Order: sequence, then structure tokens, then C-alpha cells
Amino acid sequence: MTATLNVRLGARSYPIVIGSGLLDGGFDLSDYAGGDCLVVSNETVAPLYLDRLLPGLGDRKVDSIALPDGEAYKTVPTLQRILDTLVEARAGRDTTVVALGGGVVGDVAGFAAACYMRGVGFVQVPTTLLAQVDSSVGGKTGVNHDKGKNLIGAFHQPHIVLIDTDTLHTLPDRELKAGLAEVIKYGAICDAGFFAWLEENVAALLARDAGALAHAIRRSCELKAEVVAADEREAGRRAILNFGHTFGHAIERCLGYGEWLHGEAVAAGMIMAARLSGLEPADVERLRALVAAAGLPTDPPAIGASDWLAAMGMDKKVRGGRLRFVLLDAIGSCRVTSDYDARRLDELVRAAA
Amino acid sequence: MTATLNVRLGARSYPIVIGSGLLDGGFDLSDYAGGDCLVVSNETVAPLYLDRLLPGLGDRKVDSIALPDGEAYKTVPTLQRILDTLVEARAGRDTTVVALGGGVVGDVAGFAAACYMRGVGFVQVPTTLLAQVDSSVGGKTGVNHDKGKNLIGAFHQPHIVLIDTDTLHTLPDRELKAGLAEVIKYGAICDAGFFAWLEENVAALLARDAGALAHAIRRSCELKAEVVAADEREAGRRAILNFGHTFGHAIERCLGYGEWLHGEAVAAGMIMAARLSGLEPADVERLRALVAAAGLPTDPPAIGASDWLAAMGMDKKVRGGRLRFVLLDAIGSCRVTSDYDARRLDELVRAAA
Repeated sequence: MTATLNVRLGARSYPIVIGSGLLDGGFDLSDYAGGDCLVVSNETVAPLYLDRLLPGLGDRKVDSIALPDGEAYKTVPTLQRILDTLVEARAGRDTTVVALGGGVVGDVAGFAAACYMRGVGFVQVPTTLLAQVDSSVGGKTGVNHDKGKNLIGAFHQPHIVLIDTDTLHTLPDRELKAGLAEVIKYGAICDAGFFAWLEENVAALLARDAGALAHAIRRSCELKAEVVAADEREAGRRAILNFGHTFGHAIERCLGYGEWLHGEAVAAGMIMAARLSGLEPADVERLRALVAAAGLPTDPPAIGASDWLAAMGMDKKVRGGRLRFVLLDAIGSCRVTSDYDARRLDELVRAAA
Repeated sequence: MTATLNVRLGARSYPIVIGSGLLDGGFDLSDYAGGDCLVVSNETVAPLYLDRLLPGLGDRKVDSIALPDGEAYKTVPTLQRILDTLVEARAGRDTTVVALGGGVVGDVAGFAAACYMRGVGFVQVPTTLLAQVDSSVGGKTGVNHDKGKNLIGAFHQPHIVLIDTDTLHTLPDRELKAGLAEVIKYGAICDAGFFAWLEENVAALLARDAGALAHAIRRSCELKAEVVAADEREAGRRAILNFGHTFGHAIERCLGYGEWLHGEAVAAGMIMAARLSGLEPADVERLRALVAAAGLPTDPPAIGASDWLAAMGMDKKVRGGRLRFVLLDAIGSCRVTSDYDARRLDELVRAAA
């Protein structure tokens, strides 16, 4: 069964197509990909799925490039390598860049598509749960800088997001769980019904039940698409998608990126954010229990209080300033605010030391 | 006397302010530049104008960076240097990048503004005639690739273009003339009255008569703003701005960039394009005479016919294909077309061998 959602962005609107067997069924991408194509993948994903993607691109010139696998390669030199490949191929303005892989591949390939000749076509074929429910939708592209993640990038919407749920069969357990953190996030911030559904179905998701995964992906994409359509360039409301991320990013920064996966850091970060929210203890416990049931960490690693504050941008220079947090009013409802209990924040980071 | 034009691009609309003494008068940029500022200039322009720009930025943190002067520095490493400066300064999302200089500074600084945190504010303060009448207006930003100009970039509109005509006092004669090539272009493609005005006033422009320069800049910006408003991302009509540029780019490529200035190559290219247009000989002669009166080359340099064709992208691979040219129907009227006299093109490039 195939589901199609639409991300409503005026002239930049695009469909998200979700289903099983889309690659092997040769889903026809020709309406979404003009001209020659460059498929950007990585050394893990390309051997598994590149040959299965090609028939859907039909009869045209298709080049491909396989990046080394990992966040360490989401850099300007990798971007330059993709751009060089496009230049060498004498790719024209009608070229389409196709990202086949997880979030790193999608982010860097999308940024290359945004920059090459000031913007060429882009297609997302995400193969990790995290990319399927989060990074492939919404048009954020970019690379990391030595001093911070995603500091260099562009908003560049794809022409289509093609999600073949079968690609999750080859995803390592740890990455599947990390993807679930963002799924849980959508329920927590804006859909209490979906949150309750996740409480019922988390075991089925971990067992990779195809129907459960398809529903979780679909609902996550719907919720993200609604938020993005209302605020494409994150001037306001879109910031709610950062629930758990202020703490999560600090965890990643303090441990060194890659020690904890992004989803793992967000999982522990969501519980810290829920505790900062002044939420009913029973609701905090529901979130904690769901995160635990998904096999994700519920407590942050040991980090000194001053490291926490520095990693969240609260270093000496701006100690007097306030951070902006996404806080929960209840399960399924949230606000973006600088009005939080600073003493509670202090207690939370000291408890995690 | 100060003139203000508007580039109408919906939410991205912005003013072009043109006048004498705007820098020394401390034109207040605070409505257009939020947060901290990074002024990007070059080693030639910064000593002349940086101190005069600063009062208009008011009481805020302003950093500056002076790039080496020249097209050779319109590269990814220069972009990286600007981005590193922003990261080191811990510049936030409300930062504004201010470009103070010619086209190279504007293009690379604008691209840095487009990429940093997926887009921060941008202000153009062009100090060459070419930048004032062309590159600072319309939102094209980018850097060169070893294999071709402007292959990497973004559309990123400024919040304001501030043109102080006094900055032309320090512009070398050769660069003033090169800027006039683009001014003549606007008359040729879409304003016969302005073309006639240029015929009358070209001597005054070369003598740097302030009133004449202000009028030429204003009318050029008005014409470009109209074209850009109708087709921001060059899907169609905006291509008319490339009149003379297919030949011009080929000249630059064959001689090596910098041997002829861009405007010089465009000047000779416009006359070749006029000849390819099947225009009345008297009109070709009017264009030739105006280009000559502006002190610009009317004939291309000696380039072999096969080099011409290769440089225009008509190499062996696509010899059967057709180029798209901007051709004149009359002085002040043009079309973009692949329907041209291929034999005439052949004669033109052979004559120039």
C-alpha cells in the first residue's frame, strides 16, 4: 500500500510517497527528475540499493558517487567533491541530484543541488528511519563546520521524497531506535493521539512490523509537513521541531559527535526538556517510559554543569542571557519560550553531572 | 539628490538608493541591517571607504575582512574564509553581511550570507560602476569553479543596495569604461530612448559628470529591477540580460580571465550579437559607434574558429545542437532565441580568427 502526502509550499510543493517495494517496483521518477542525474549515496547504501533505484530513473544519463559513510564527511570538502563531479560531467541546469541514503547524504547532496548553478533539481530517497521521518522532509540542507553542526547550508526543497520502507530491513537496530526518538518527538509536541498509538505499538515498531513502521513514518511526515508548510524558513513555529534538541545538541557536543547517535541524545534531551516544562509528573513519566520502551537512553551522560551551559551557548559571555526552549504544556502540546525556571535548569544540569 | 528605486519581489523586495555623499552623510542603514555586522571588502577599497561606511551602521558590533583584490579570489577558499570569520565571531542568525566593493566582493560576500546558517541578512554597497548597474542588483551570488565562472552560488537578495556615486571618483578609467558596456546593454535590449540619451551623453559619462553618471546608474538599475522582478530566478525573460554575453564569455575564456575585463568582452560581444541578429546595418553601426565612443573594443581579439565554438559550448559533442542567443529586433528591443542563422554565426567567428 502506497501513501502520498503533500508538502504545501506554493510553487515549491512536493509529494512524499511512502510504501513497500517502491524501489523494486521501479517507481517512475521521470516526472520529478529532469535531465541527467547524479545519484549521491554512500559506501554502505550504494551496494544495497543503487541498482534497485536506477530503473525508476528510466533512460537517461545517470552518474553516481558513493561518499564515505558517516557524519565526519558532512563537510565542505565533500560538498566540493560532489560539485566537481557535476562540473566534470558538464551537468546542465536541468540536472537532478538524487540523494540515496541517510541524513548525511541527503543534507550534503541537497546543498550541492542548492549551490550548483544556483540551484538544480533534487530528489530525496531516504534509507534510514531518521532521514525518512525528519531530515529528508522540509528542505534543510547543509554541511558542518569544525566549530558547529549545520552552520553552512541552504533551504532547498526536493521535487519528491520517495520512502521505500523496505530499506529499513537493512538498518542496524541502534539506528532504527535512534530514528524512533524523532517519531516520539512528533507525538510529544503536537499529537497526543499519535503518542498514545506509539505507546501501544512501540514493540511492533522495534520488531519492524511493516504496517506499524509505515503508519509511524506517514504520521511523522504529515506532522512535519504541516509545520514546515506554515513556516518554511523557521522564522517561528518551525522551531517546535527542536524539542529536546537544545539538550541533545549539548550532549553530542560534550561527548564528541558520534559517541551518542543524534536520536539517542535527543531522547535523553526530550526528557530533560519535559522536566524543565513543569509538566505533570505522570506525563513526564509517560514520555520516559516510551523512550525506555524504544530502547533509548532516558538519562543524559555525566557532563559537568559548566560544560552543559557552555555547550548550550550559555557561556560566561552570555550567562546573563536566556535560552529559548521548546517546552511541553501537555503530551501533544508545546510552546517555544525563553520563560523557563532558571533554577530548575540549573538543577537539571547539576543532576546530570 | 538621492533617488530611491524598488526591486519588487514580494516579501524579498528591497530599495536601491542612489546618490552623492551617501557614505559621508552617514546614510542610516539600521533599518536594513539587524544584529552584528561583518563588512566584507577588499584591500583596495577598504582603505578608501571602510571608515566612511561605519557611521551608517551605528552603534553595534562591526567586524570587517579585506579580501585580496581580483576575480582570482572569487573562490570556495575565499568563501570559507568569510564563513570562518562569521563562526569565529559567533555571529548569530540576525547577523548582517555588508559587501563593500565591486562585483567580486558582492558575489562572494552575498554567497556567504546565503549559506551562513542557511541565510542571514545582506547589504550591498557597490563601489564600481559595473557592480552599481549590474551585479549588486538581482540577488545572484556565487563563486567560480576552476572549470567555469559562477558555477557555484545562490539567489540571495540584499535588504538594500546603497550606491554612493562619489565612490566612482577613485575608479580607474578602464573600469569605468567597462561598466559602461553594461549600461549600453540596457539601452540596446530594452530602452531606445535611454540608448539615444547615452549617444548624447557618453562624453559626459567618461568625464565623470556627476549628474550624467547618476542618471545612467538610475536608469540601468530601473531597467534591471523590472526584468528581475518579472523573473527572479532566470526561468525566462531575465536571460535578456545576457545580451552580448555568450560571445563575451567566450572571449574571456579563450584569452584567460582578466586579460580583457568582463565589460570589454561584453562590448565586443554585443556587436557580434547585433550582427548575428540580422539588424538593420544602420542600427549595428549606431551600437558600434556608441561602444567606440565609450572607449570600449568594437572587435573581438583573434581567436580560432574552433576555439570560439568550444568556448561557447558548441564543441564536438554538441556540434549538432543550437545555442540560445539574445538577439536584437531593433535598438531597444530583443528576443531570446535558438533560431539564428548558423552560417552567419560561422562567418562571424571565422572573421574574428
